[in-house]
Amino acid sequence: MVAPSTLPAGSVGSVETRYLDLPAPLPLDCGRELSPVRVAYETYGTLAPTRDNVILVCHALSGDAHAAGYSTVASGTGTRDGFAAESRDGAAGKALGWWDGMIGPGKAFDTDHFFVVSTNLLGGCRGTTGPSSINPGTGRAYGSDFPVITVADMVRCERAFLDELGIERLAAVAGGSLGGMQALQWAVTYPDQVDSIVVIASTHALHPQGVAWNAIAREAITRDPAWQGGDYYGTGRRPDDGMSVARMVGHMTYLSAPALDGKFGRRLQFADDIRYTIDRPEFEIESYLDHQAESFIKRFDAGTYVRMSRALTYFDLARQHGDGSLARALANVSARTLLIAFSSDWLYPPIASMEIEAALTEAGKPVEYHLIEAPYGHDCFLLEEARQTPIVRRFLREEEQ
Amino acid sequence: MVAPSTLPAGSVGSVETRYLDLPAPLPLDCGRELSPVRVAYETYGTLAPTRDNVILVCHALSGDAHAAGYSTVASGTGTRDGFAAESRDGAAGKALGWWDGMIGPGKAFDTDHFFVVSTNLLGGCRGTTGPSSINPGTGRAYGSDFPVITVADMVRCERAFLDELGIERLAAVAGGSLGGMQALQWAVTYPDQVDSIVVIASTHALHPQGVAWNAIAREAITRDPAWQGGDYYGTGRRPDDGMSVARMVGHMTYLSAPALDGKFGRRLQFADDIRYTIDRPEFEIESYLDHQAESFIKRFDAGTYVRMSRALTYFDLARQHGDGSLARALANVSARTLLIAFSSDWLYPPIASMEIEAALTEAGKPVEYHLIEAPYGHDCFLLEEARQTPIVRRFLREEEQ
Repeated sequence: MVAPSTLPAGSVGSVETRYLDLPAPLPLDCGRELSPVRVAYETYGTLAPTRDNVILVCHALSGDAHAAGYSTVASGTGTRDGFAAESRDGAAGKALGWWDGMIGPGKAFDTDHFFVVSTNLLGGCRGTTGPSSINPGTGRAYGSDFPVITVADMVRCERAFLDELGIERLAAVAGGSLGGMQALQWAVTYPDQVDSIVVIASTHALHPQGVAWNAIAREAITRDPAWQGGDYYGTGRRPDDGMSVARMVGHMTYLSAPALDGKFGRRLQFADDIRYTIDRPEFEIESYLDHQAESFIKRFDAGTYVRMSRALTYFDLARQHGDGSLARALANVSARTLLIAFSSDWLYPPIASMEIEAALTEAGKPVEYHLIEAPYGHDCFLLEEARQTPIVRRFLREEEQ
Repeated sequence: MVAPSTLPAGSVGSVETRYLDLPAPLPLDCGRELSPVRVAYETYGTLAPTRDNVILVCHALSGDAHAAGYSTVASGTGTRDGFAAESRDGAAGKALGWWDGMIGPGKAFDTDHFFVVSTNLLGGCRGTTGPSSINPGTGRAYGSDFPVITVADMVRCERAFLDELGIERLAAVAGGSLGGMQALQWAVTYPDQVDSIVVIASTHALHPQGVAWNAIAREAITRDPAWQGGDYYGTGRRPDDGMSVARMVGHMTYLSAPALDGKFGRRLQFADDIRYTIDRPEFEIESYLDHQAESFIKRFDAGTYVRMSRALTYFDLARQHGDGSLARALANVSARTLLIAFSSDWLYPPIASMEIEAALTEAGKPVEYHLIEAPYGHDCFLLEEARQTPIVRRFLREEEQ
């Protein structure tokens, strides 16, 4: 435990991930039902007696429920992507939450006012039921039998989970990347239950280049012989090599070329000269990628990774809810929408947020869009906390008026 | 054979790849010597009695000696990258050369005037000695014992090869991407023997993002268990899965996001809806990547691929020849230089060509730089032939005056 007196200002302190079992089977887009479903979650702040101060924060591809404060379990969670992953160990070797810079007393999601809830996504590998969970029908891990899930399934799971907490209405749903997709999906699926959404570095539908990068990452994993069709659990072999390559691909798409120039340049590991090797890192950027992959495979499951990746590519509001029209898809939204994008984010480029803004405006919905000029690519959503904070705080305060 | 009467205007007609064995061991940057070395080559046009009309064209990462005309061997060479790979089958099922649009009577490299020579690079897998060649010391394929080569080694091999053809001087050295690096290296290593260089969609040193993409491609290959440390030849197993992933990564870096938007969008393979699969292509872009990978592994060797990739990343004129200064590295160049870059090429961005232009200008060397606005990414160098042609023709005509 971190003693309160040693906590930095704005910290929610030590937190423990808790678990809740849903009381009923969860229907899925693919037509199947999943049961039982356990949800890993954390909460920060205090639920108002009127239960109207709840913010749900949704994590991205490789995150977990530990969004803020110091985890009481061992450090090294490191759920933040890209450069952001580097400085996440908190005081006393405790792992800091992936959005700690945004959640806490006086922060963007101010726990002096709001009750912030964070869950591990459906299909996850950090406590919520996923492909590595035991299938009660067989007594073994689901593996390939775990369903392919969608963003709408994740949101349906979050809805069922909040029902158990006795929370009907959300003051806000917030997230970046895949988390932002969930926020959008909430506003579309449960228009009467969401007052506002905060959609950061996200999109209404990944562009084809993004679809391709995700496909390549999945190819790297599923072509690894250790993947064994997805049924590697309990075999003593894991698709670590495929996961490493997938992570390297993902990692590169989170960063911008100028950020890499600034951080690594063409510096060699061995300052004197090249070493004429094929499969050993010689440039600092190569060594960095190796290191990122190595730490990732220790904490993340390949079965979860491919499903999160697939959900990302399927997500398409216009196709799924508007017969091809984004404005039609958003026609029933009643939440106020805050969109934040970053100039150097080429995986979730600003144009996608601008399209959402245009569609909401066309439909007469309240929306504001902020473009932040920053050089770190998609990673900005985890790095540029200081610049997002005033925007988010002001947006949420308007909610309260 | 394609009958001359059926040839399209500007074609060099049917050509056959020939082979030449170098008479002496080839010294390499790594300190080793390679012997014997066989070079696969083709020529187009007629060598002038004065031997002063020779243009050497150098291919890129996955190319070969068959640069122009119809190959007399089976079709399907398909050495062009990206979108460019799609329409390369010539008349009567004969494979068209990878730069056929640029080489021939009346074309950019006009075979009515010039004698154009094209070789398969050292370390290649299309006739020139490479890792899949037989090591005379063991009677088996070199595999992991084949040296790690550099762009300077490739150029040294081309120099030794031209010596055997009795060609001392080059009117021009030309190439795109890795081919452009060779042209630059020629101008630096043999300043008195090159009248001009044509450097297209290339660079004096790959930026860190490019280094990273190449590293990831090599990781995909060398982490494939079938790679067997590079000694897979003759084992009945090849790292096809790793090569597939590597090719997909490479392919994506050759194309631009807008080009993918225009060509594929988010269209599904099955127009009705998503199918909830993890490891099967559902988007057209996914199917396209699969197809590209499948055709690539049939024609290209992994051992060659990783070495070409490594050479690309090592190439760094300023570090290798100028103590960190590009202007110093280019101080002894006497060739006139033509630089062409493409606005949407993010793997070899225009800034690199501009840096070369600035360094040559600073050193008082004749140089011209052309930026072509075109949307197809790095692939432009193989696709935008019509727009490059007048630039190259005028530049080469100045040579003759």
